[in-house]
Amino acid sequence: MELDLSLSAAELTAQLVDAESVSGNEAPLADAIARALAALPHLSVDRDGNAIVARTRFGRPERVALAGHIDTVPIAENLPSHVDGGLLYGCGSCDMKSGVAVQLRLAAHLTRAARDVTYVFYDCEEVEAERNGLLRLSRVRPDLLAADFAVLLEPTGAVVEGGCQGTLRAEITARGERAHSARSWLGRNAIHAAGGILDVLRGYQPRQPVVDGLSYHEGLNAVWVSGGVAGNVIPDECRVSVNYRFAPDRSAEQAAEHMREVFAGWEVEVTDSAGGARPGLGQPAAAAFVAAIGGQPRAKLGWTDVARFDALGIPAVNYGPGDPQLAHTRNEHVPVDQVAVCEDRMLGWLREAA
Amino acid sequence: MELDLSLSAAELTAQLVDAESVSGNEAPLADAIARALAALPHLSVDRDGNAIVARTRFGRPERVALAGHIDTVPIAENLPSHVDGGLLYGCGSCDMKSGVAVQLRLAAHLTRAARDVTYVFYDCEEVEAERNGLLRLSRVRPDLLAADFAVLLEPTGAVVEGGCQGTLRAEITARGERAHSARSWLGRNAIHAAGGILDVLRGYQPRQPVVDGLSYHEGLNAVWVSGGVAGNVIPDECRVSVNYRFAPDRSAEQAAEHMREVFAGWEVEVTDSAGGARPGLGQPAAAAFVAAIGGQPRAKLGWTDVARFDALGIPAVNYGPGDPQLAHTRNEHVPVDQVAVCEDRMLGWLREAA
Repeated sequence: MELDLSLSAAELTAQLVDAESVSGNEAPLADAIARALAALPHLSVDRDGNAIVARTRFGRPERVALAGHIDTVPIAENLPSHVDGGLLYGCGSCDMKSGVAVQLRLAAHLTRAARDVTYVFYDCEEVEAERNGLLRLSRVRPDLLAADFAVLLEPTGAVVEGGCQGTLRAEITARGERAHSARSWLGRNAIHAAGGILDVLRGYQPRQPVVDGLSYHEGLNAVWVSGGVAGNVIPDECRVSVNYRFAPDRSAEQAAEHMREVFAGWEVEVTDSAGGARPGLGQPAAAAFVAAIGGQPRAKLGWTDVARFDALGIPAVNYGPGDPQLAHTRNEHVPVDQVAVCEDRMLGWLREAA
Repeated sequence: MELDLSLSAAELTAQLVDAESVSGNEAPLADAIARALAALPHLSVDRDGNAIVARTRFGRPERVALAGHIDTVPIAENLPSHVDGGLLYGCGSCDMKSGVAVQLRLAAHLTRAARDVTYVFYDCEEVEAERNGLLRLSRVRPDLLAADFAVLLEPTGAVVEGGCQGTLRAEITARGERAHSARSWLGRNAIHAAGGILDVLRGYQPRQPVVDGLSYHEGLNAVWVSGGVAGNVIPDECRVSVNYRFAPDRSAEQAAEHMREVFAGWEVEVTDSAGGARPGLGQPAAAAFVAAIGGQPRAKLGWTDVARFDALGIPAVNYGPGDPQLAHTRNEHVPVDQVAVCEDRMLGWLREAA
């Protein structure tokens, strides 16, 4: 497969969609991207596994990173791609080969700019975090990711979504004592006791802080509950799994501490957590980006890989074509015009005053 | 196998224990019981499947039934039987071949009595209710079970336990609306809503009514709780399975109605229920029984097959050798002396004024 970077961004999206690259199977597409970029004299290209990093050498004082994953969720009878009524359908069309097409077009055609640019194409975003190519790069080659500001081209409906909230999961456990249910007063019912955990959740008032000018909205919710031994036994354990979504003015450690305060007196086990990312809209590159894109930026409430840039000290936003609600659906698609608009706005931003 | 009804009750228990009869495999033991009883001229013997009913024909105005199941739970490396320190060990020794041995001894040796006696030996008590031999008899040959009072020789530690409480299970469901947990306010959390169900359970005051002179003690408890869709989804359903143990002054229908009142406003599905049994200690035969056995009768709080007699309009009590807590354990055993005492007390009752 050879990528044709002279195609329009939408046509290039179709070519990328038709190059199946379910997580773990990115090598042929990574090879094609590496070959296409290696031919461009204004870029230096590095590779780690199936992640490709291409950097301009314009000698500008500021550097921005544009990042996107090249893998997709499994195909759901939605290949090859097709266009219908101005919409391009196919696995990965929305999440996020249209964003990758914009990256590739910019990498090929932006031969001078106001800022240096790092294009990051990475693997295994759609699977467990430990396999994530951006995480791997941040560990083995953080130098390749160095930048003042980053844009992740995940689908946002072509609206700037700044930073992201963190997410933490914890198991809150209520304990009791078993007994036969015909003599229930000889035991202590852990499910009844877990009513106290639900009381805390029902009474919780989530924060809505403003961070770097964007309004975030936290949430604390039970996502699982389980308890019970047998139909005739007073249960001695009931577990409530809670998911805390926290604004990026709070670290993962602070979020865990907050959980221990909120559920003081209960057994609390934090099972996984990932800090969020500040939007960094105070950065000059970020302010220029928002001005170039237009519209009213909003806070990203879900967790995304922008948090990996934040962990490297790089503020980041999300901006890309496609409705995020369509990601991972069989019916996934992207408006052809939106791909072109995204490319155009990004180009405007990067070219300015160049 | 030939049963030797001239053995002591404890020796006969050992013989019965060594005749493996896990539920569904009762035929050889049922054959042996039928042969042994058919040889006795004071009894008329009927059979339905692996259930045997033997009735005296003394022509007395009152008739009492003595009932026991001949099946056991699966063997747990606890055969053959052995005696150690006055305790007889082995599968079924406690639940309830010692009771069956007492029945067989009485059937063989009680050739005149103040009351006519019906001895019921039945199959498949340890498995799902629909296979229960006593239930089958009550449907196809209720005439064989006709009596003024019944004693079920299940293990009670040789204390009269009157009647039994009913048991009902219901699923109480809280509903909500799904949403991504990063935007939880777009949904309604069904697990949080289920806190209201737990509020009802935590505030519930169980009745302790006196029925036929015995104090019962009700209970209403959650025995299972489950809810959750995924770690990042606001759940739209949470189910709490409750177990209501109710005194025998309330029918299964009344118990179900009570549940619908207690959980008014929630979805309530009664998944199974079984009415209890009044102890009937006001019956002359029952009063004489209590006097002959001695001790202070207590209410049976767990559900037993006495409820099947109650459903036929026959008051019933539980009385037999062995600690009910040992039933279904690998270490199951029965004190040899307790088997003899039970036989002696039952004999005293049935012989009185004969």
